Amino acid sequence: MEKKDLAIIGAGIAGIASGIYARRAGLTFELFEKKTVGGQLGFVGALDNYIGIVPGATGFELVSSLNETLKKMDIPPRHEDVKKIAPGTGKITVHTEAGEYIFGAVIIASGATWRTLGVAGEAEFLGKGVSYCAVCDGFFFKNKDVCVIGGGNTAVEEALYLSRLCNKVYLIHRRDRLRALDYLQKELTETKNIEVCLESELTQIKGDAFVEEVTARKKDGTVFRFSVNGVFIAIGMEPATGFFRDVVACDEHGFIISDEEMSTSQKGIFSCGDCRRRPLRQLITAAGEGAVAAMSAYRYLKGNYISS
Amino acid sequence: MEKKDLAIIGAGIAGIASGIYARRAGLTFELFEKKTVGGQLGFVGALDNYIGIVPGATGFELVSSLNETLKKMDIPPRHEDVKKIAPGTGKITVHTEAGEYIFGAVIIASGATWRTLGVAGEAEFLGKGVSYCAVCDGFFFKNKDVCVIGGGNTAVEEALYLSRLCNKVYLIHRRDRLRALDYLQKELTETKNIEVCLESELTQIKGDAFVEEVTARKKDGTVFRFSVNGVFIAIGMEPATGFFRDVVACDEHGFIISDEEMSTSQKGIFSCGDCRRRPLRQLITAAGEGAVAAMSAYRYLKGNYISS
Repeated sequence: MEKKDLAIIGAGIAGIASGIYARRAGLTFELFEKKTVGGQLGFVGALDNYIGIVPGATGFELVSSLNETLKKMDIPPRHEDVKKIAPGTGKITVHTEAGEYIFGAVIIASGATWRTLGVAGEAEFLGKGVSYCAVCDGFFFKNKDVCVIGGGNTAVEEALYLSRLCNKVYLIHRRDRLRALDYLQKELTETKNIEVCLESELTQIKGDAFVEEVTARKKDGTVFRFSVNGVFIAIGMEPATGFFRDVVACDEHGFIISDEEMSTSQKGIFSCGDCRRRPLRQLITAAGEGAVAAMSAYRYLKGNYISS
Repeated sequence: MEKKDLAIIGAGIAGIASGIYARRAGLTFELFEKKTVGGQLGFVGALDNYIGIVPGATGFELVSSLNETLKKMDIPPRHEDVKKIAPGTGKITVHTEAGEYIFGAVIIASGATWRTLGVAGEAEFLGKGVSYCAVCDGFFFKNKDVCVIGGGNTAVEEALYLSRLCNKVYLIHRRDRLRALDYLQKELTETKNIEVCLESELTQIKGDAFVEEVTARKKDGTVFRFSVNGVFIAIGMEPATGFFRDVVACDEHGFIISDEEMSTSQKGIFSCGDCRRRPLRQLITAAGEGAVAAMSAYRYLKGNYISS
């Protein structure tokens, strides 16, 4: 079987960035994507924080532009689901449901998904008031009332972040106490426009075109309603790292550990984007990391480096 | 004097990204820029590797879109030259030629400039065959003849990188030996389509609309010509870190040392983009780093963090 330089697993923005830089560097490669190009990006309603795109564009427009770039650069995504990767001596075998391929290096850009609540209205109002990321979407809710669902560090951080932009923030958590770190909880109690609602479970998200109201049920059975325009669901993220966890070192949540050059614990395997542990989970950081991963793979494959 | 949260020094793409994320996070800040918004980006002829922008756009178009974003988000750059930053207890004083300002945190995004040769035609053909970055522009010269000027690691790496894309690469160096590391020189001699020309100084770059020919002079006085379409000048980069070097730790070339969260050796001071030591010097990585720096400054200022 013909050996190619590089396998890129996942055609979200990180994997696409890797593909663009790999093509420009003259590497031979495959870009594997089991679902659709752009990953979750297609569902992003308004895209206001991708540097270089004027606020007001949609995620769909960015996906279209990425697809056009792939076409222009002759990078056809291979729609196969990668089932296994097996590092060997000087080669890495990639198994998909369709066959086996041999590569010199692999970039894992398999992404992650936000954990969902599964309540009525959650899917329907995604991008219309329902969000999984305060840094991404908080700005759309300036001076409005919002709620945050969850009780861990992320939920409390998101509530604090939103409290500085929004009029009022309800933090709704199903347990009788928060799991967040002490100093976060201390700041929470000092923040006047946050109201913490414990032992409360979100049951419904309602509205017309956009979210207008949520319903929650207290442990004692009481049902109450909040008028809010935003619902931030902060119950964690699930990295799509499944079987990769047997091949490269991951943190306790399953995110791949890689350094600033995107090198993992396994020689020849790199990772970028949402599937890796990183300081800031944003489209623009994923794109930059994808470029770095491709050039690091290039260096690894060619035995030299490009310092600029 | 009123204290603001954050000073961002430099409105290249890294500093602009910091400004966008700072505005969205509700921070008060100033974006200082002594020259023009977009930095060196305005001179980029064709922009084929900025993820999300379809190949074929120009640097000028990206600058326009960044300017429009700044206007939409009400971020007017303050056109003052920062002369000094002085960290104090819980505050950092920024001195410009126009006055003194007090901030809680500072992001240094002051950029860097490529060293130039100063030969006839160099400025004239910039973006029309003259380039300072093989990873940025190499792809435009696929199957063409090019030359690389320089004798250090970067010059040899760029020659090797280009050898895989181009028909023929001349490596022109004024000294009698290369300064590059042994393994790079070894690979160089093994690469058939690279011709090394030592003791040769570039004297002129000529062409019509685009580069067509360069002239070099041998140490013995012989003058010779190469027909090339591309001239890659790889004699190094100068970080615009001047007096910052007294405030934060820098590497031996003057690039600021900061970690993946963009924190420098000085509490409350962050750095991003071309002025910092980093794995890959590209627009897309600078943009991502700018976003990270802003969120790290936010965490520092607010005493908490956003993990997603």
